[in-house]
Amino acid sequence: MTIDVFEEPADTREEILAATYRSLRDHGYAELTIKKIGTELERSPSLIYHHYEDKDALVLACLEYLLEYFEGELSDGKIDDPPARLEEVLEWWLATDADDEWMGFVTAMVELRTQAIRDPAYREHFTRSDRVFADSIAAVIRAGIETGDFQECDPEAVAATIQTTILGTVLRRSSTDGDDWLDAVRDELGMYLRTRVYDEK
Amino acid sequence: MTIDVFEEPADTREEILAATYRSLRDHGYAELTIKKIGTELERSPSLIYHHYEDKDALVLACLEYLLEYFEGELSDGKIDDPPARLEEVLEWWLATDADDEWMGFVTAMVELRTQAIRDPAYREHFTRSDRVFADSIAAVIRAGIETGDFQECDPEAVAATIQTTILGTVLRRSSTDGDDWLDAVRDELGMYLRTRVYDEK
Repeated sequence: MTIDVFEEPADTREEILAATYRSLRDHGYAELTIKKIGTELERSPSLIYHHYEDKDALVLACLEYLLEYFEGELSDGKIDDPPARLEEVLEWWLATDADDEWMGFVTAMVELRTQAIRDPAYREHFTRSDRVFADSIAAVIRAGIETGDFQECDPEAVAATIQTTILGTVLRRSSTDGDDWLDAVRDELGMYLRTRVYDEK
Repeated sequence: MTIDVFEEPADTREEILAATYRSLRDHGYAELTIKKIGTELERSPSLIYHHYEDKDALVLACLEYLLEYFEGELSDGKIDDPPARLEEVLEWWLATDADDEWMGFVTAMVELRTQAIRDPAYREHFTRSDRVFADSIAAVIRAGIETGDFQECDPEAVAATIQTTILGTVLRRSSTDGDDWLDAVRDELGMYLRTRVYDEK
C-alpha cells in the first residue's frame, strides 16, 4: 500500500515534492517545516525557498502533483474489469491491515482537510480532488453497467456514497483507537452494493 | 438546529464551558484562546485559569460536558417511535439547510478530531464519544426490531455504517465547497436502510 508516484523524482522540483510527501506522511502537517524538508532532502532550506514561498505553497504543490499523477493514471485506457476495479478501490481505502505508511498518508490528508476549513487554497484543492475521485468511481460503475456486470443505477450517487463512506472511515481511524467497527462498515457497504450495483441474478 | 445544553448555565464552571462552546463554534479551535473566552464571558482570563490549566483542558472539559449531556438525554426513557427517531438523527446530521451555528459546531468537531491524531486525551474522548453515539443508534434499531418496524439485522453494524457516513459528510462539508453530492448520499443511505432495516412489506 505505498504510493509510488514519488519514487523516481526527475528533477529538483520533484525531489522537493517527494521529500515533502515523505515528511507529511511520517511527521504530519503540524510538525512540518521547510527546515525539516531540507533535512529529509539533504539540501539547504534556501533551495526550497527558491522554488516555493512558504510551507503551504509547498504542501499545495505536493497535493496538486499527487492529484495530477492520479488523473494521469485514470486517463490511462479503459476499465477492463469493473467489479475488480471497484473491489481494488474499496480494498485500498478500507483495508484493516493498513501499514504505517498508509495510515501516515491518510492521517496527513485529514490534517490538510482541516486547513481547508479556513484556507481557500486548500479548500479549492479538496473540492477539485473530491470531484476527480468521485468521477473516477462513477466511471468504474458506468463501465460495469455497460459490460453488464452492474445493474442500472445512478453512478454519480453511488460514487458519492462510496466516497463519503471512505472519508468517514478515514476520519474515524485517524481520531480514535480500535477499528473493530471497520469490518462491519465494509460488510454493510458490500450489502448496499450488492442490492444497488452488482447484478446478482 | 441549536444545541440547548448550554442555554442556562448553573454556575461559573458551566458559564465558562458555555463560552468555550460558543467560541469554538463561532471562531474555531485554531483561533481559540483563553483570552477570547474571557472576552466572550466578560470575565478576566485569570478566572478561567483558576478552573482550567490551559486551552486544551478547557476544550476537553467542554467536550466531556456535551457528551455527558447527550448520554443523559439518551438514558431518559424508552424509544417510542424508532423510525421517527432514526429519521431525526439523519435529519439532524444530513440536513442540507444547515445554518451557520450548526456548521460552526461540526466544523469545530473536525478540527478537534485532528487534534486527536497526536493528542491522546482528545483521542480517548473521541473513541468514547463514537462508542456512545454508535450505541445510541444501535439502541434505536434494536427498539425498532422489537416493535416490528424494522427487520432483523445487525444493529451494531448498521449503526457503525450510519455513523461513518455521517462522519464522512461532516468532513467533506467542512473541507470543500458545494454540497450537491449530499442529497445523493442521503438518497442512497435511504435505499440501503430500506433494504437492510425498514421492514417494507
